[in-house]
Amino acid sequence: MIILGIDPGYGIIGYGVIDTEKPNMVLDYGAITTPKEASFPERLQEIEENLKFLFDKYKPEVVAIEELFYFKNQKTVIQVAQARGVIILACQKYCGKIYEYTPLQIKQALTGHGRAEKAQVQYMVKAILGLNSVPKPDDAADALAVAICHSQTSNALNQNQAR
Amino acid sequence: MIILGIDPGYGIIGYGVIDTEKPNMVLDYGAITTPKEASFPERLQEIEENLKFLFDKYKPEVVAIEELFYFKNQKTVIQVAQARGVIILACQKYCGKIYEYTPLQIKQALTGHGRAEKAQVQYMVKAILGLNSVPKPDDAADALAVAICHSQTSNALNQNQAR
Repeated sequence: MIILGIDPGYGIIGYGVIDTEKPNMVLDYGAITTPKEASFPERLQEIEENLKFLFDKYKPEVVAIEELFYFKNQKTVIQVAQARGVIILACQKYCGKIYEYTPLQIKQALTGHGRAEKAQVQYMVKAILGLNSVPKPDDAADALAVAICHSQTSNALNQNQAR
Repeated sequence: MIILGIDPGYGIIGYGVIDTEKPNMVLDYGAITTPKEASFPERLQEIEENLKFLFDKYKPEVVAIEELFYFKNQKTVIQVAQARGVIILACQKYCGKIYEYTPLQIKQALTGHGRAEKAQVQYMVKAILGLNSVPKPDDAADALAVAICHSQTSNALNQNQAR
């Protein structure tokens, strides 16, 4: 099963593509970045186009995406949520199967405990995928983490399909 | 100039189309509603498809949309912001000119003071457009209000283009 993991944002959107049938699973990872000098609507368009490219290239069967939680900065949460809406719509149009995981669920799946540090999660991403170093940027590592989280929980009854 | 006004949401999205060259201006108004029983990604897709239909039908030159402010309910603000991102992207793709107004700016433009009651704004929408009654639902009246706000302020130097 090919899984596209996404760490949502509007300036930088992490992505990670894994194939659970392959030994080390990882197919690709990286980050979509949108230019600061562009208008917000233009940045949203950029996100959609780059995601469409990833869907065309890897044809993932499912998407796993981090849930959005409260931020201290209200302006940031609105911008990120607006971009996340665009991401969700692209996933719906180009894939149709979307699963959401909280940071706690992701930490739990990768390290066995929900209060793990970021570095521990990144270490487990590196170890599980047999990489030589922690994937960079952090957004890409986070995206791989949510993809791995889905691969480890999707065999069990999965209640996380986006509603 | 044909202006599409939008009152963003995810369960109900108000719209109002006005033509500033026509005597009473109003071309159409109403609300896009998305089914509660559908998943959130499906509802986003519904919003995009309905907006595309409006853009195809009326070919507005500009879109005027309400800015999103702090809500008490954090879950609601995230959902609305996600839908608003989809709306902004549709406006960018099918029109390209997007102006944002705060509730204060809209009240100011329609009634002359920023602390006007909702009913006063609705009364002015009815009066300006020469309608027999206040447009229903409220979301449609709000969408017409932001369209009128743009028509009244777009002759002056306009700083509200979405960034």
